[in-house]
Amino acid sequence: MKLGFVSAILPDLSLSDVAEFAFETGYSCVELMCWPKGRAERRYAGVTHIDVGSLKRGGADKVRAVMDAAGVGISALGYYPNFLSPDPEESKRAIAHFKKVIRAAALLDVGRVTTFIGRDWTRSVEDNWPRFRKVWKPLVKLAEDCDVRICIENCPMLFTDDEWPGGKNLAYCPAIWRRMFEEIPSRNFGLNYDPSHLVWQQIDYVKPLWEFKDRIFHVHAKDVRVDRARLDDVGILATPLQYHSPKLPGLGNVNWGRFFSVLGDIGYDGPVCVEVEDRAYEATVDTRKAALVQSIHYLMQYVP
Amino acid sequence: MKLGFVSAILPDLSLSDVAEFAFETGYSCVELMCWPKGRAERRYAGVTHIDVGSLKRGGADKVRAVMDAAGVGISALGYYPNFLSPDPEESKRAIAHFKKVIRAAALLDVGRVTTFIGRDWTRSVEDNWPRFRKVWKPLVKLAEDCDVRICIENCPMLFTDDEWPGGKNLAYCPAIWRRMFEEIPSRNFGLNYDPSHLVWQQIDYVKPLWEFKDRIFHVHAKDVRVDRARLDDVGILATPLQYHSPKLPGLGNVNWGRFFSVLGDIGYDGPVCVEVEDRAYEATVDTRKAALVQSIHYLMQYVP
Amino acid sequence: MKLGFVSAILPDLSLSDVAEFAFETGYSCVELMCWPKGRAERRYAGVTHIDVGSLKRGGADKVRAVMDAAGVGISALGYYPNFLSPDPEESKRAIAHFKKVIRAAALLDVGRVTTFIGRDWTRSVEDNWPRFRKVWKPLVKLAEDCDVRICIENCPMLFTDDEWPGGKNLAYCPAIWRRMFEEIPSRNFGLNYDPSHLVWQQIDYVKPLWEFKDRIFHVHAKDVRVDRARLDDVGILATPLQYHSPKLPGLGNVNWGRFFSVLGDIGYDGPVCVEVEDRAYEATVDTRKAALVQSIHYLMQYVP
Amino acid sequence: MKLGFVSAILPDLSLSDVAEFAFETGYSCVELMCWPKGRAERRYAGVTHIDVGSLKRGGADKVRAVMDAAGVGISALGYYPNFLSPDPEESKRAIAHFKKVIRAAALLDVGRVTTFIGRDWTRSVEDNWPRFRKVWKPLVKLAEDCDVRICIENCPMLFTDDEWPGGKNLAYCPAIWRRMFEEIPSRNFGLNYDPSHLVWQQIDYVKPLWEFKDRIFHVHAKDVRVDRARLDDVGILATPLQYHSPKLPGLGNVNWGRFFSVLGDIGYDGPVCVEVEDRAYEATVDTRKAALVQSIHYLMQYVP
Amino acid sequence: MKLGFVSAILPDLSLSDVAEFAFETGYSCVELMCWPKGRAERRYAGVTHIDVGSLKRGGADKVRAVMDAAGVGISALGYYPNFLSPDPEESKRAIAHFKKVIRAAALLDVGRVTTFIGRDWTRSVEDNWPRFRKVWKPLVKLAEDCDVRICIENCPMLFTDDEWPGGKNLAYCPAIWRRMFEEIPSRNFGLNYDPSHLVWQQIDYVKPLWEFKDRIFHVHAKDVRVDRARLDDVGILATPLQYHSPKLPGLGNVNWGRFFSVLGDIGYDGPVCVEVEDRAYEATVDTRKAALVQSIHYLMQYVP
Amino acid sequence: MKLGFVSAILPDLSLSDVAEFAFETGYSCVELMCWPKGRAERRYAGVTHIDVGSLKRGGADKVRAVMDAAGVGISALGYYPNFLSPDPEESKRAIAHFKKVIRAAALLDVGRVTTFIGRDWTRSVEDNWPRFRKVWKPLVKLAEDCDVRICIENCPMLFTDDEWPGGKNLAYCPAIWRRMFEEIPSRNFGLNYDPSHLVWQQIDYVKPLWEFKDRIFHVHAKDVRVDRARLDDVGILATPLQYHSPKLPGLGNVNWGRFFSVLGDIGYDGPVCVEVEDRAYEATVDTRKAALVQSIHYLMQYVP
Repeated sequence: MKLGFVSAILPDLSLSDVAEFAFETGYSCVELMCWPKGRAERRYAGVTHIDVGSLKRGGADKVRAVMDAAGVGISALGYYPNFLSPDPEESKRAIAHFKKVIRAAALLDVGRVTTFIGRDWTRSVEDNWPRFRKVWKPLVKLAEDCDVRICIENCPMLFTDDEWPGGKNLAYCPAIWRRMFEEIPSRNFGLNYDPSHLVWQQIDYVKPLWEFKDRIFHVHAKDVRVDRARLDDVGILATPLQYHSPKLPGLGNVNWGRFFSVLGDIGYDGPVCVEVEDRAYEATVDTRKAALVQSIHYLMQYVP
Repeated sequence: MKLGFVSAILPDLSLSDVAEFAFETGYSCVELMCWPKGRAERRYAGVTHIDVGSLKRGGADKVRAVMDAAGVGISALGYYPNFLSPDPEESKRAIAHFKKVIRAAALLDVGRVTTFIGRDWTRSVEDNWPRFRKVWKPLVKLAEDCDVRICIENCPMLFTDDEWPGGKNLAYCPAIWRRMFEEIPSRNFGLNYDPSHLVWQQIDYVKPLWEFKDRIFHVHAKDVRVDRARLDDVGILATPLQYHSPKLPGLGNVNWGRFFSVLGDIGYDGPVCVEVEDRAYEATVDTRKAALVQSIHYLMQYVP
Repeated sequence: MKLGFVSAILPDLSLSDVAEFAFETGYSCVELMCWPKGRAERRYAGVTHIDVGSLKRGGADKVRAVMDAAGVGISALGYYPNFLSPDPEESKRAIAHFKKVIRAAALLDVGRVTTFIGRDWTRSVEDNWPRFRKVWKPLVKLAEDCDVRICIENCPMLFTDDEWPGGKNLAYCPAIWRRMFEEIPSRNFGLNYDPSHLVWQQIDYVKPLWEFKDRIFHVHAKDVRVDRARLDDVGILATPLQYHSPKLPGLGNVNWGRFFSVLGDIGYDGPVCVEVEDRAYEATVDTRKAALVQSIHYLMQYVP
Repeated sequence: MKLGFVSAILPDLSLSDVAEFAFETGYSCVELMCWPKGRAERRYAGVTHIDVGSLKRGGADKVRAVMDAAGVGISALGYYPNFLSPDPEESKRAIAHFKKVIRAAALLDVGRVTTFIGRDWTRSVEDNWPRFRKVWKPLVKLAEDCDVRICIENCPMLFTDDEWPGGKNLAYCPAIWRRMFEEIPSRNFGLNYDPSHLVWQQIDYVKPLWEFKDRIFHVHAKDVRVDRARLDDVGILATPLQYHSPKLPGLGNVNWGRFFSVLGDIGYDGPVCVEVEDRAYEATVDTRKAALVQSIHYLMQYVP
Repeated sequence: MKLGFVSAILPDLSLSDVAEFAFETGYSCVELMCWPKGRAERRYAGVTHIDVGSLKRGGADKVRAVMDAAGVGISALGYYPNFLSPDPEESKRAIAHFKKVIRAAALLDVGRVTTFIGRDWTRSVEDNWPRFRKVWKPLVKLAEDCDVRICIENCPMLFTDDEWPGGKNLAYCPAIWRRMFEEIPSRNFGLNYDPSHLVWQQIDYVKPLWEFKDRIFHVHAKDVRVDRARLDDVGILATPLQYHSPKLPGLGNVNWGRFFSVLGDIGYDGPVCVEVEDRAYEATVDTRKAALVQSIHYLMQYVP
Repeated sequence: MKLGFVSAILPDLSLSDVAEFAFETGYSCVELMCWPKGRAERRYAGVTHIDVGSLKRGGADKVRAVMDAAGVGISALGYYPNFLSPDPEESKRAIAHFKKVIRAAALLDVGRVTTFIGRDWTRSVEDNWPRFRKVWKPLVKLAEDCDVRICIENCPMLFTDDEWPGGKNLAYCPAIWRRMFEEIPSRNFGLNYDPSHLVWQQIDYVKPLWEFKDRIFHVHAKDVRVDRARLDDVGILATPLQYHSPKLPGLGNVNWGRFFSVLGDIGYDGPVCVEVEDRAYEATVDTRKAALVQSIHYLMQYVP
């Protein structure tokens, strides 16, 4: 496995600074954020370390030169919008930009793009399904043509009343992944597996590794802490941030030894990228860097 | 405490048959269903053991005579509609009928009516609040005037897609109870406490007994079994019946010894009514009666 | 479900005494032992409450008359030898007698016979398989012809050095049951499900209820207590009685509430027979009867 | 085993009323309190169902006649003072009266007396030891001469500041029992084993059953509930009633199935007496009787 | 947060050697022991890395120069006597010296002094209270005047018979902290929070972080291992070292990931000092240094 | 303690390469495999880093020179054949070679040899005992004469049908160790303690550290992961690799903090050698080296 991190936590650093910091800290790859320039719709979104809108062969060569110079790889190009937004304009823009991300991944020889399925959060999974099918079949086809693998992160994108009740990403549980892959069985369509989102959903985050072992293309190392006292007051019908907090690996409920133990046994040897969304480390660029230093120190005990 | 049962499970029995069965089986009280005649809107609803619509002094005397003859008390009059339904007609009818239930309770000297707050299930708790205040202040006032205590069951009324996402009853967790009683601090406004609904919400069902000890007016003895394998597949964002099943006391996750231990320590000595919603016992009137026989056998080990 | 008991614990009582005791104690059925007269090869074996060797129409009528007089049913005819014994004579005798048991069940209209698969305990499961196939296909065929269901108890029949290493019954775990029913998919071939044997094998005794719900024809209510201090000294490679003890229901590790909860949900409504193999209750016929009194008191809280 | 109860909970009933109530409720024996007439030093103390001070042959015959008439046995004569009190007068009076209790047990052919060792609660175990030796050697000698077994209850007698820090009974943990029996190895010196006192001391209450199986002469069935929230506030250095509450069997932390399972396996077949010290049941003689009814219903599922 | 260690474990090293070792090992601060010269009353006491008795402006400058040269800060000045000793001379000397420690902290611009409340261990908390008030109000006043924060370690100072029954420090549990801060609500009066002392007291060591977040001025990273087998023999009424052992972080029962997770979320960013009291590492100065090397390796995975 | 590794995982490296890799990675010793040249009977066997068959004084000096040059010690000479094989030739050859290993250890001043007892896996422990006694008494005598300690690894050597039912090493549980050391009480006969083998045997791997503290001469740091879903399908009567997998330290069920905590407290300060048998790391020499890098990173947090 290759330890990396998600570049969204270092929006103020240039690509080459990101790459150098990665190398110095011991990371061997980075998941580079590719949001459209100038957009920042929500926390951790809107970061642009590669501007895919304008990327050509020459620009791609430059990006590769920067990464090679630092001795650090690109695990994936990341862009996490809501393709199934009830706002048709938002959806259209997202799809158009995502196609550029896929093509950029091909141009850069990266092989992976990371994203969400999206969801009209005001409607049930069932009601979203026809649109999922319609939007995603052509996107997966494009990815096949480009020899790029789409990695869907399993985050429900449900935090507060803003995304209530359904959240902004359909792909949140094993039953739905199974249905997705039956619907679109392409080998270029898989998961960006993040165990933390399963923790607060009360889902075993190790068991699916066996069932979906051929679909795990990318892994996020993030943790969450569920606080029993808060949960006892509001219950699981509350919006999730009322009873849990995203944390660095090792500061939450994930048993990382067990997680990596099985991840190794299913033969996974792709990237494992630390995703920092821990409020206790967000004050300054220095504390955010410290979060990445602490995280790799923690993860190195479980990852070769 | 006084063991009883909710009469909704025996819709085919007359009031006197219900009372006689209760006595023979060892129950000392019954929570009598008082739905309007001729309505059966959902499972377990629509049962009428007392027709409050037409109840007068004479009718009340007859009801009392029937119960006295059997040697069995009435724990409460029960009617569980959706007072805050988005359909204003439904809401209006429910409120009108509930006033009759309250008055009937007074007439019968019962002292307790059991019900839900209701909810527009398509809207957030916050969005329902103004209407809660408006509907409930006069109802509680009426209960005060009649010297009747309103007992709100803590069921989220969320089972399948039909009630998704919010369920049809606001009063589902301690944080909301606290807010309800701050809003309407009347001593005639309290809870019909059912531990089973807290189990699948992952809420400690013993801890609130201390905080709300002065608000617990009535208790339901129902259990639920949470199935880990089902939960591992769909998670807590699924509709609840996908991962849990209502069961008889002793056949679920509730630790009844601990529950009654604390219930006794807070000085509760009111009714504890078995509510049968266990599909495995619903086939015939005989299996439903068997459910009540089994339940009292189970509960007698914890209740004097 | 119908509570009963295995008659092997009352070898000194006549059939009618067994039936009367069952009725008085509240049991509604009995699993009657049908060993060949005069044999007593091991503890709890060799009991003959019906002598199937000589049973004719007239004898069967008498048996039924006795049971009807007492108001108690026959859950099954039981005979638990080792059909796959390395001693060919023993095997042959067992098969011949078992055919009589099947025919007796038909004659008595009982519908169920309870037994083991047997095993050459010195050889692996794999090595026993050809013989399992050869012996059991005709036996199941006979059962089909007689409209009798064969109920295989899932006991490993491994206790001490006498049955080391393999035990005397192949049908001890879900993986093997699956293979058995794939090999002989007859609807007359199923399980006599005893959760206690799964406990000390460290197997979840509830999960298989769902997978094998159509194969559960009979249930034994027995418990075992695993003693950690003993297990810590010898480990799971020891012979099993070194670290566990068979006990009455409620005196061991089985969570009976959960077991019956799921048993009800899968629609099981057949017999549940208490099997007493608890050394603490074996001193006299009175203590053995007391074991059955205590057991039904315990089980009635979970069974209608 | 023989189910009974401690008569201290029914101080207002005469001996014959106690015996009749026992019989009607299903108990087969009673531990009769034998405090000196007119003394009531603490809660649950000072009850006199047999006045041993004046007991002669004739009186003993009368007591036996009363019990035989009711069909109920005497499990033991109980008297629980502080023999090692720092007040020498208190100690002297207690010793003198206890000798009468022993002699009364002989006269009545009861065979068991139940009591405490006592302790100067202001001093360490070590500092109490010389006095333990001096007081108890002659008492045990007397018991031997009378063929009566002394059963020491394992209660620390530490509840509030009144008994702080050491409590009023030395015999509270396995290490001390071991030392006691090494010091005075008489076969007439053993335990009145109450699992509940071990629960809040955080001691395994099952493990000692094996080690002390020859010393368990009498058993108390009492339970306690430890409340984590209270313990989290004050910790184990607080006086014990700050974080636990004595309760009826089944309403606390004791796993009675496991307890009786091992009790049976070590061959214990003596009395098991319910000791009611549950505040929730103390209001009236009726609630105290109800406690005994509930308790036997609970215990019968585990005891033959 | 800033990782440091308590200098008491390196009594044989000079201040500059301590500082240099800290730097080389990766620690960024040290809690420096300031016992009066020549005193060594108990294990881990009596160490003097700064002689506050004679400290003047010039001496303070030298101390700062030494620390600055090494690039290591001072987390606090530590002195842990028994201010409430029953020996009035001992108490007086302690108070007098502590005032010097406070003034030295001001002179050195350190801002924190670490200590105990003290206790007359032969008397109850209640009985110690008047003296607590009398001794501590002026001390806190002095700290306010000097702009120094007093950090009270939450150790019960109860280990063996020597401190039985009450221990030598009142400030051992949340209920008492609450009372202390109500009594003396100064913002210069807080805690030196050590989770290990809460572990063996069976108190949740994470929950109080939220309630006392404004009072946590300093943190000790020490662990303890509770041995169940020992506890099962003697119970919680024994002196604590009979059932637990102080250990390095990671070698005991503290879940450090959870502890630091919440410590971060409450915004704590002060010192976290390893306190070595692990007998397995005390043989030589080398093993004690090795303890500090191992501890920082362990803690770096949880602390930035 | 001294961290090392078992050289069997690096068969393709020369002795000096092994030693240099150890030093660079931070290990301070190596357990060197001493199988006879040219033999490779099973996975992880047959590795020869020292050819003891031909070792003379000069060769020994060379070995020591190589190790000294790298700055790395030899924890033990390892050779793990089946001395009690049913094949008498195999047994004879093993014994003859083991004597050379013992003498080589003396020559090299290493002081420890690591091995198994062996077993005729087709026969019971009891049946193997006479041969154990006969084979091992002279071997232990030789070790005494050579001043070398024999360290028996506690692996049952039971993995698949190949070693069914008994496994190839008698020394697998505490009860058997006790018997071994009673039979041959020499101080040169002890254990090479590997906690992982106890995990899947469901034996507490910490408790025996106290009882056998004087017999623990060498320690293996290996882990195993028990997979509940697999165990639930086949149970403990299956061959062990059906339900567990050997893993690197930290990737299995061993609680290493607790293990090292007690190991330190019993005064163990010998070698702790990582044994890599984790299939996920066996692909190439690089992944096997990576396994050793990851393992020391993990273990350093618990070992000084």
